[in-house]
Amino acid sequence: MINFQCDYAEGCHPILLEALTKTNMEQTTSYGCDIYSKNACAMLRTACGSEDADVHFLVGGTQTNATVIASVLRHHQGVVSADSGHIAMHETGAIEATGHKILCIPSEDGTISAEQIEALCHEHFTSPIQEHMVQPGLVYISFPTESGTLYSKAQLTAIKKVCKAYDLPLYIDGARMGYGLVSTACDLTLQDIANLCDVFYIGGTKCGALFGEAVVIINEALKKDFRYAIKQHGGLLAKGRLLGVQFEALFENGLYFDICRQAIEHALAIRKAFEDKGMQLWGTSYTNQQFVILTDAQMKRLTDLGYEYEVWVPSDVGQTVVRFCTSWATTAENTQRLIDDIKAL
Amino acid sequence: MINFQCDYAEGCHPILLEALTKTNMEQTTSYGCDIYSKNACAMLRTACGSEDADVHFLVGGTQTNATVIASVLRHHQGVVSADSGHIAMHETGAIEATGHKILCIPSEDGTISAEQIEALCHEHFTSPIQEHMVQPGLVYISFPTESGTLYSKAQLTAIKKVCKAYDLPLYIDGARMGYGLVSTACDLTLQDIANLCDVFYIGGTKCGALFGEAVVIINEALKKDFRYAIKQHGGLLAKGRLLGVQFEALFENGLYFDICRQAIEHALAIRKAFEDKGMQLWGTSYTNQQFVILTDAQMKRLTDLGYEYEVWVPSDVGQTVVRFCTSWATTAENTQRLIDDIKAL
Amino acid sequence: MINFQCDYAEGCHPILLEALTKTNMEQTTSYGCDIYSKNACAMLRTACGSEDADVHFLVGGTQTNATVIASVLRHHQGVVSADSGHIAMHETGAIEATGHKILCIPSEDGTISAEQIEALCHEHFTSPIQEHMVQPGLVYISFPTESGTLYSKAQLTAIKKVCKAYDLPLYIDGARMGYGLVSTACDLTLQDIANLCDVFYIGGTKCGALFGEAVVIINEALKKDFRYAIKQHGGLLAKGRLLGVQFEALFENGLYFDICRQAIEHALAIRKAFEDKGMQLWGTSYTNQQFVILTDAQMKRLTDLGYEYEVWVPSDVGQTVVRFCTSWATTAENTQRLIDDIKAL
Amino acid sequence: MINFQCDYAEGCHPILLEALTKTNMEQTTSYGCDIYSKNACAMLRTACGSEDADVHFLVGGTQTNATVIASVLRHHQGVVSADSGHIAMHETGAIEATGHKILCIPSEDGTISAEQIEALCHEHFTSPIQEHMVQPGLVYISFPTESGTLYSKAQLTAIKKVCKAYDLPLYIDGARMGYGLVSTACDLTLQDIANLCDVFYIGGTKCGALFGEAVVIINEALKKDFRYAIKQHGGLLAKGRLLGVQFEALFENGLYFDICRQAIEHALAIRKAFEDKGMQLWGTSYTNQQFVILTDAQMKRLTDLGYEYEVWVPSDVGQTVVRFCTSWATTAENTQRLIDDIKAL
Repeated sequence: MINFQCDYAEGCHPILLEALTKTNMEQTTSYGCDIYSKNACAMLRTACGSEDADVHFLVGGTQTNATVIASVLRHHQGVVSADSGHIAMHETGAIEATGHKILCIPSEDGTISAEQIEALCHEHFTSPIQEHMVQPGLVYISFPTESGTLYSKAQLTAIKKVCKAYDLPLYIDGARMGYGLVSTACDLTLQDIANLCDVFYIGGTKCGALFGEAVVIINEALKKDFRYAIKQHGGLLAKGRLLGVQFEALFENGLYFDICRQAIEHALAIRKAFEDKGMQLWGTSYTNQQFVILTDAQMKRLTDLGYEYEVWVPSDVGQTVVRFCTSWATTAENTQRLIDDIKAL
Repeated sequence: MINFQCDYAEGCHPILLEALTKTNMEQTTSYGCDIYSKNACAMLRTACGSEDADVHFLVGGTQTNATVIASVLRHHQGVVSADSGHIAMHETGAIEATGHKILCIPSEDGTISAEQIEALCHEHFTSPIQEHMVQPGLVYISFPTESGTLYSKAQLTAIKKVCKAYDLPLYIDGARMGYGLVSTACDLTLQDIANLCDVFYIGGTKCGALFGEAVVIINEALKKDFRYAIKQHGGLLAKGRLLGVQFEALFENGLYFDICRQAIEHALAIRKAFEDKGMQLWGTSYTNQQFVILTDAQMKRLTDLGYEYEVWVPSDVGQTVVRFCTSWATTAENTQRLIDDIKAL
Repeated sequence: MINFQCDYAEGCHPILLEALTKTNMEQTTSYGCDIYSKNACAMLRTACGSEDADVHFLVGGTQTNATVIASVLRHHQGVVSADSGHIAMHETGAIEATGHKILCIPSEDGTISAEQIEALCHEHFTSPIQEHMVQPGLVYISFPTESGTLYSKAQLTAIKKVCKAYDLPLYIDGARMGYGLVSTACDLTLQDIANLCDVFYIGGTKCGALFGEAVVIINEALKKDFRYAIKQHGGLLAKGRLLGVQFEALFENGLYFDICRQAIEHALAIRKAFEDKGMQLWGTSYTNQQFVILTDAQMKRLTDLGYEYEVWVPSDVGQTVVRFCTSWATTAENTQRLIDDIKAL
Repeated sequence: MINFQCDYAEGCHPILLEALTKTNMEQTTSYGCDIYSKNACAMLRTACGSEDADVHFLVGGTQTNATVIASVLRHHQGVVSADSGHIAMHETGAIEATGHKILCIPSEDGTISAEQIEALCHEHFTSPIQEHMVQPGLVYISFPTESGTLYSKAQLTAIKKVCKAYDLPLYIDGARMGYGLVSTACDLTLQDIANLCDVFYIGGTKCGALFGEAVVIINEALKKDFRYAIKQHGGLLAKGRLLGVQFEALFENGLYFDICRQAIEHALAIRKAFEDKGMQLWGTSYTNQQFVILTDAQMKRLTDLGYEYEVWVPSDVGQTVVRFCTSWATTAENTQRLIDDIKAL
């Protein structure tokens, strides 16, 4: 089988594995207080252009989202999100399990707009019965979104402005941050992200690490006691240096961006193959997730050829939206083979 | 520095690292549905003598405790625990964060007795105002305990009997299970553990793995929907095969027990050195944690010699209980050096 | 001011006040174990035609919903509801505060259909990644709905059938149960309600009592430990006899239905006045809530005349949906005056 | 039966009932925004000597405690309490259900000392692994305590000082506030209470009202969005004016204190009867709860004579601590009869 189903089918990038192997028998302080974690934090602060930022490493995305969101909100507050947001759809109610409602905004392509957030907040804060409703307390967006789309600098700036007006922190889920930043469709840098939000995370799991997400807290008011929150959510890894070692390796010499860039090249080549074949793409992703509408026959054929892909949503009768996902681990050989097989469909 | 402070100062056992390296670039299904995880589950079922058990892998101990406990309890129920239990003391309220009270039983040595559990349950279920109090819904013990002590087969059998009488599942936190089972003071096997409780976990993080805990569910009634609970608590690792690969390696040819046995030998040698020196031990641990009372001068001396140990609790004036912890990674060289330095104190 | 804004503007029906006054200085057992509460429970069981039902009295609706829903669900489960349901809109996240997601179904008129519930459940339980999503664990509907609409016996029977197929309990929020049952558009009796759901509540607050909601648990599996749940949610009233005394009075000689029926007569008279005047009604309520579209001028005129009504939702430009609400306390005089004023608009 | 078991056996004081009756058919705004509630708030602010305080009315004590505590705490924080505190013992885990641990301090007589709080906080905030433990975020005491004991002005001042040093708000549960303030052993006024804590509540349920507790928020930082918290916890009574009307009546002409003072006189007369008889009192309550150690024979005799009292805790063999409770409703006749019967024991 050739896996284009997701971006977490392999282990980690060989350079990270090497670093883990090299440091394996060293004795370090636990729970993220080791020298590797400290060094990785410093590297990330520099990469973000935010020397005052707090950086923390957690294990996985759902854990990270629940930890950040619960840490920011008071009990009567909820988090604003696209209805297709990962927290709203695919985290088994991890946010609600911390007591907080997700205030959903309808989204076609995974993004929400400044206007939508403004409308939701305006409606809430001008309601005479506002205390009967969950108060917006945080805005959550993902970059890239679950559909592979991106916010432009202008869009993100507009969202930040609305958030500021309503005194709402802005949180960016960057599970695939690397794939977003190096996309040909992206006009934002990591520093821009840091400048335009209050807290965000840089995903490791899907971008070359065995596991691990780096939370970057920019807003001073959100920094206090975050390690308590991590521990309460089971995210304070005993051998925290595993996270430090990996993020050090990822941000040494720009490896993180290089390997993501390569994934994007594979993805766009596959995208072009679909287009050349006249197949209908779904959405407008220029990141590592490519969505295409396949007929039942095409699905069968590709499956028979040994490809694994993700069934996304039903389309018209006899047609299905499926996702092909590249990653840091996608080989040129597999991509070329897929392109050839698309041509021959 | 020579670390005797904890049993999670290094990475993982070389055999596990080798297995992770060997499989690193393989493409597998995610979220624990891969072949390595399935195989590891089968191996654990066999090791536990419970072919009907459900086995799940999670990342860390706090996460595992919160997931199991919340999965078992109804909202109005609490979990019975020693007041020194890990869930009561060192998980930043992770259990309470799921909405459940910990019903504490005073404990000197980390264990609780069948009589204490019986008394607590009797008091609750005979109270005319029982609905004003949290109902016992689960009993939590750790094996070994936080103080390195063990339950005997007789004690565990008695506890199970009380639990059964009150229809309370029994859950065993086995973060250091391996060190307990191979202790010279232990009369229980892994199969006995499986027979005498409803759900337990076999710790990997402290016993040779990079991370990972294996939950074994024996009681049929507790099996339903456990993967939902894992996901909600952020424990469904995307690259779940990392857990499968490690537990496979740990339970292949009894590696898990072998490396734990070696740690116990180191620990008992250190214990003997303390005794030979006439120093006062604290508690009665025959597992990998050794507690000794040091004078301030002794503490300073050992620190000056480069040892790291855990400050446990204050003892008399000028004296402190400290913990020396061995692990699968403890070298003969370091142990011998410590023994020599103890002699020379 | 003449209040048609809501059905809780006055105290309680004089007969209830008389009963409260008569019993005021009696000494009774607390927390609902008094003779009045016991008697009222028995009367409700009879009224519901369910001699095996458990009946409990709570203070208010939000409290009742949170208590029932949290008592039924396991942590990873959510409650299915219309997106306009009271729990989804106007309880400040009380359900999410217990850790549970509300799985919303779009609704135009406040009702949800058996087909919609079937589709939601089918999608969930056939998903290969179902454990990444909140599992439906209970279905919540309100009778009448927030928009004053009713389920027919056929609709409710169909819903119950779907619930049974997926092993989901059905819970009916009956905050305005009385007004629904006596509506001219209703083909259900209280016994039908009891037969067709697993748990429901009969509202007192809006139907003649100072406060109080009577939870009726039909399904044996949901009865256990419900008093613990009530206490945990702050609903176990110290002077529980206040609830017993009131519900006794309400269900003595059918008072509950008589006073609700009178409210419906007032409501339908007002409805007719709107229709006669050629004004556009909103929705299809034949209960005590009447929704009409007013022009800005009409709104101003009615406000100037001293009427209070509820602004519901914006309609077209210069038009607003408003709610006129009658209750057990609405006087013939006020209704006639409003009708006359509508005619003269 | 003559009830000395609790202080909530009757309805409400006749003056309150009269006020409720008089206003019963008035139409008012709902959810506590009515004129009676506003007026009662103003009266309470004046009574507390805190014109800037926020005052809110809730229905019952457990609800009030959960609402206040959850509103103050962040997720990783817990509330410090005596182990015998009402929140720790008799609220079915309502606090834990909001996600927060209760950090218990051992208490013999129901009170905790400034030194104990200081020690707990010092231990936490100087711990190198503090983030592994629940952070103290609020101190809860009750006045009077569950055992009828009182804090002196000096004690409360000392507690407040410690709280300030650790930036911890101080919350006083005043379920029986009235009986405490008028006790002969009390050197605090209501204004002192308001000056020495951040938030407290004045109990109505046990002091003359049908139900109702008045939360007084002194600390500016705790005021924001409190009505959201009330609604989320099901405490925003639809007919909020019932609370306003009652508290208005209670604080008009000092009724609250007068009726509590009368209860204290009865209590102390009973206390004297026990002492005169040479019976052993338990604890040192000079409030409306009197604790005495009865022999089995004495218990039987008093029960046979028709008295209801509360069985508190077992004492020596054949002896039991029982509670006799007076209230605003205790009659001179019943008290005299009890005193005579004590004499004749």
